[in-house]
Amino acid sequence: MLTERQDAYGRMMWGYLNGEPITEIVERDDGWIAPSGGAPSYFAEFKQWPRHQQVAMRFVRGRVLDVGCGAGRCCLYLQKRGHQVVGIDISPLAIKTCRKRGVKDARVLPFTRVSRALGRFDTILMMGANFGLFGSRRRARWLLRRLHALTTPHARILAESNNVYQTKDPDHLRYHRFNRRRGRMSGQLRIRVRCRRHCSPWFDYLMVSPKEMRVILSGACDVS
Amino acid sequence: MLTERQDAYGRMMWGYLNGEPITEIVERDDGWIAPSGGAPSYFAEFKQWPRHQQVAMRFVRGRVLDVGCGAGRCCLYLQKRGHQVVGIDISPLAIKTCRKRGVKDARVLPFTRVSRALGRFDTILMMGANFGLFGSRRRARWLLRRLHALTTPHARILAESNNVYQTKDPDHLRYHRFNRRRGRMSGQLRIRVRCRRHCSPWFDYLMVSPKEMRVILSGACDVS
Repeated sequence: MLTERQDAYGRMMWGYLNGEPITEIVERDDGWIAPSGGAPSYFAEFKQWPRHQQVAMRFVRGRVLDVGCGAGRCCLYLQKRGHQVVGIDISPLAIKTCRKRGVKDARVLPFTRVSRALGRFDTILMMGANFGLFGSRRRARWLLRRLHALTTPHARILAESNNVYQTKDPDHLRYHRFNRRRGRMSGQLRIRVRCRRHCSPWFDYLMVSPKEMRVILSGACDVS
Repeated sequence: MLTERQDAYGRMMWGYLNGEPITEIVERDDGWIAPSGGAPSYFAEFKQWPRHQQVAMRFVRGRVLDVGCGAGRCCLYLQKRGHQVVGIDISPLAIKTCRKRGVKDARVLPFTRVSRALGRFDTILMMGANFGLFGSRRRARWLLRRLHALTTPHARILAESNNVYQTKDPDHLRYHRFNRRRGRMSGQLRIRVRCRRHCSPWFDYLMVSPKEMRVILSGACDVS
């Protein structure tokens, strides 16, 4: 759970909800810095979502765990469709935002702390590149085993990533090489999120190609 | 003069000129961070300028030194009106941008290095809060004396500042108190500019009230 000063991501959402002009900034450990996609995307209605996210919703069934639920856009959409949804996020202000917007069950909880105490789920949702919350190959396998323990036999994980290799940006390509040289996956971004005086701790956010995702998942199946 | 990696401000302008989506980010030494006003304002045509800047142009006469000329919007406007203009900026990429856009005399030169070698000026221009380039009360007086040496007897300085006291933002008010506690003027912002992998050195940018500006100027007159 983030402290008040660390909750940059939540600060952005809470500010946006309250009509402040506010920007979330992402800083990478090679010194690269840029604004994030922006608050509006966290608040977008279903109609405005990217097509692939809309399509993903067709695969949702039963009881849903929304991992890194942000401002609760998926929770709200699925609630309305009759699903029982639990939204979790590491950010207290994100969860406050979710509740204010009508998410019925939103909890401040790091992904690493999910447990059977939350009940059983038929769908695990990780939209908006939230596959990244797995952090690294090794951590992904460990977390997939945890998810396995709290899902029903035919449960689905609907997770989204950005294919890091689809870029020609020299800054990003240099960063991929930098990562590989230090024994990390190309898309294992070490970042922190900033917003005004708020600054998150550094954390790993994992962006993978479809092939890399398959390798990670198949490895997890072997051990679980 | 800034090195390539330090030239974040120029990187933003050069990127914008070349159609890149690019944001300049300002970081303050209390950890506060936010996007700047944005590239378009540096490229704005006279018609889009704030009213007070348009009015200021009426006071321009003769040969002009544009201090911190950025992407050259003032230089271009005044050139067209028949003025001889010298634009100076610490940023190599800003000067490259100026030249590309048609500024006839744009030079990479820190404000602290202005000298009689530039010739005599009838107007010194410091638009867009560039009074801030004076840095501090003490530095302002020293630089005003330098400007005195390269101006004609009835020369004018047209300088713009933001009145820092016109804010209710608790982050900014806290920063003013922080500055006063360490013996600085409330609006003596210690900032650095970042853009992608580029990051400027920390520097002081001075924002003053009209009264503070008067005090600084009258002090300078006493000594010059």
